[in-house]
Amino acid sequence: MDYRRIKDQDKEQDAVHDDIESLRGKPLSGSANSMVMLGGSSSVQSKWKRKSAVTLALTVLTSSQAILIVWSKRAGKYEYSVTTANFLVEALKCAISLAALARIWRNEGVTEDNRLSTSWDEVSVYPIPAALYLIKNLLQYYIFAYVDAPGYQILKNLNIISTGILYRIILKKQLSEIQWAAFILLCAGCTTAQLNSTSDRVLQTPFQGWVMAIVMALLSGFAGVYTEAIIKKRPSRNINVQNFWLYVFGMAFNAMAILVQDFDAVMNKGFFHGYSLVTILMILNHALSGIAVSMVMKYADNIVKVYSTSVAMLLTAVLSVFLFGFHLSLAFFLGSTVVSVAIYMHSLGKLQR
Amino acid sequence: MDYRRIKDQDKEQDAVHDDIESLRGKPLSGSANSMVMLGGSSSVQSKWKRKSAVTLALTVLTSSQAILIVWSKRAGKYEYSVTTANFLVEALKCAISLAALARIWRNEGVTEDNRLSTSWDEVSVYPIPAALYLIKNLLQYYIFAYVDAPGYQILKNLNIISTGILYRIILKKQLSEIQWAAFILLCAGCTTAQLNSTSDRVLQTPFQGWVMAIVMALLSGFAGVYTEAIIKKRPSRNINVQNFWLYVFGMAFNAMAILVQDFDAVMNKGFFHGYSLVTILMILNHALSGIAVSMVMKYADNIVKVYSTSVAMLLTAVLSVFLFGFHLSLAFFLGSTVVSVAIYMHSLGKLQR
Repeated sequence: MDYRRIKDQDKEQDAVHDDIESLRGKPLSGSANSMVMLGGSSSVQSKWKRKSAVTLALTVLTSSQAILIVWSKRAGKYEYSVTTANFLVEALKCAISLAALARIWRNEGVTEDNRLSTSWDEVSVYPIPAALYLIKNLLQYYIFAYVDAPGYQILKNLNIISTGILYRIILKKQLSEIQWAAFILLCAGCTTAQLNSTSDRVLQTPFQGWVMAIVMALLSGFAGVYTEAIIKKRPSRNINVQNFWLYVFGMAFNAMAILVQDFDAVMNKGFFHGYSLVTILMILNHALSGIAVSMVMKYADNIVKVYSTSVAMLLTAVLSVFLFGFHLSLAFFLGSTVVSVAIYMHSLGKLQR
Repeated sequence: MDYRRIKDQDKEQDAVHDDIESLRGKPLSGSANSMVMLGGSSSVQSKWKRKSAVTLALTVLTSSQAILIVWSKRAGKYEYSVTTANFLVEALKCAISLAALARIWRNEGVTEDNRLSTSWDEVSVYPIPAALYLIKNLLQYYIFAYVDAPGYQILKNLNIISTGILYRIILKKQLSEIQWAAFILLCAGCTTAQLNSTSDRVLQTPFQGWVMAIVMALLSGFAGVYTEAIIKKRPSRNINVQNFWLYVFGMAFNAMAILVQDFDAVMNKGFFHGYSLVTILMILNHALSGIAVSMVMKYADNIVKVYSTSVAMLLTAVLSVFLFGFHLSLAFFLGSTVVSVAIYMHSLGKLQR
């Protein structure tokens, strides 16, 4: 539902954007010039609206994703093979991108920007994020030799810092001093919000564990920043084409993961063994979240993505109080306060640049 | 030792300050004018030095104060009556102020600014901070009906917020938006650093407990801000005279507290019953800390005081690792990070005003 709403909005605003772009191509008289300026300001506004809409969608989807995970855990252990579910997520995202494209082709015809066929040059970079995520996911099995699961949740907050650093280095975008301070606060605040009585064990993580956690954070940050670089490289290119190519390689890598990890299980028990309603909802949610991430990369950036998923984490905790009768800890309130100040500072830093 | 160093520095810089003030009184020729400007810039620098010195002294003294408390607790329960110790602290501060004054009188003679005698108008406000602290200390006995001791330590961080608000309202000084954000972070960071496995109990504090905690925070904040108002009201007035009058009333109120609370114990066991080396060191330390607080009020402000004592709290924890083999928690590291960012932002906010 959310996704469709965004898609529609997206299309409307793409149309506005196209109008301005087509105007820019024409020789400008004085009045046309002022029209462009008017168009420019409404374009800024519509861009802001689109950015807000995709960010909101990502926050809501990520938050409900976590809720579904808690729900599925409460229902019992994972019965299905995770690799098949991951494959289906990629396949579903591919299908949705194709469906969106079909509609665009019907309405607007096939153009240079929305045609699916592509050059080797354009497509050659698309497997890289998928490959990076695959390596990260493989490492995930090994890190548990050094860190327990709650400790890993804590260490995952290193992603925030690695994303900030790689965003700066690779995309060469500046963050103001206040925004850097805000980013450190975001990391500290998220970690604080997740503190519990066993969290201190993470301080006993051996050296190898720290190295792996940092490598994983760098891989994850690099994959995110690299995806943004790919998607932003050609702004006029239709996002659904870009998504299609991203997800095709996602499918391929996940098919490989099925072969390596779960081939026997799939052969003996069947592809859909252990699937339940929650599993299907989770696949649906992951697919929509994935598309929302791509859109945030296209219309906003990795920094917005990090803030969005951080807020989703806090939102999940609050929702869990109502849904599962969870208790919020003092650490959660303190962490949320710090995250709120971080968001405020980030926006303040933006104004001052 | 620290105190003497500050006192000497203080005197030197007072002399510089007096020179400029005496120059200002004279009709200015062009060259005298440029001298004043030179003097003005060196005065800014010396003021900054004095401010840094008293702030550093307060931080070191507050930190060692907490170390002494831990030491005395390790040595066993308080054997001495706290009210007699408090009285001695006030008496010692009074004596130190008089000794400093005697030296100043010998060197500079008695002037309007350093004479001890005073008008009713000037002295009438001095009992108020002492009275406020007394009420707060009395309330302290009752709050433990609602909150346990570690919970009270957590709630005491409300002082930070109350000081900020009263500083704004009573002294009518502006804090920039970033400085307000920094103040909220300071409060959240200090609380985070103090989190332990029992901290969540504070969330079960009944309504009366919250009200009392807030009232105590307001009393403490008001006493601090009011002291600053008194001390800053007449900038040229010698700080030792101001301290003398503050501490005389402190002595009077604490004498009353002995009569009310520990009269029997003092009569039966004697005034100095249960005093040990640690007790004497604690009294000495409290006296010097008290004087450092006054100086921070004179040469800096309540905001600096709050930052200084917060840093002292973190410093104490780090020192306790070496002295008592304490372990630092993950929450401590996160809280310290947030406090560090808060300090950075406070200084950033100052530059931007």
